[in-house]
Amino acid sequence: REVKRFVDLTADETHDLWLTAQKVGGRLESLHKASSLTFAIQDGPQAGQTVPHVHIHILPRKSGDFEKNDEIYDAIDVKENELKQQLDLDKERKDRSLEEMAQEANEYRKLFS
Amino acid sequence: REVKRFVDLTADETHDLWLTAQKVGGRLESLHKASSLTFAIQDGPQAGQTVPHVHIHILPRKSGDFEKNDEIYDAIDVKENELKQQLDLDKERKDRSLEEMAQEANEYRKLFS
Repeated sequence: REVKRFVDLTADETHDLWLTAQKVGGRLESLHKASSLTFAIQDGPQAGQTVPHVHIHILPRKSGDFEKNDEIYDAIDVKENELKQQLDLDKERKDRSLEEMAQEANEYRKLFS
Repeated sequence: REVKRFVDLTADETHDLWLTAQKVGGRLESLHKASSLTFAIQDGPQAGQTVPHVHIHILPRKSGDFEKNDEIYDAIDVKENELKQQLDLDKERKDRSLEEMAQEANEYRKLFS
């Protein structure tokens, strides 16, 4: 069920969402041979939320993946124009095509079959 | 129960942890007259985890609170020396004393009594 804010989820929905994130995180960490994970909810527009429904960012992390650890969060928000202009990180980043994203989704889907 | 990684929590513990975070977030947002929240788990050292047990960062957010939205995440990690040297944000930040933290904890405790 799509809701705007995290607090709008029922207890059951919160449970389900985070159990799912926990499972997905574990599989993605293995797949990408990573050693840590970043989980983040940008809950509301003033927290950087650009898609107006609750969603969790799950990012496999490796030693040295970003020069400064927290650049990962800038990467989450890369679509915001202001950041695009200000960060070297974003200058180097290319949006994936719908085709690339579909391919990635398929790869991830296999982890759960 | 203290565990190192988010995946180490049982389903019940995950449920309890996030229901608590949801409640705490709602109250903190009101108290600080904020309009959004940032929730983050830095799950493992490569994700910036410096205290070796699962914990959630909950940050009330307001319009314009940080010049770039994601500086909030640098603030989370302000104790890391590398960041301390590199970021203006950290130069301006002073660690709170134990007394100040106890006072803040008391203020927050009242929200739930």
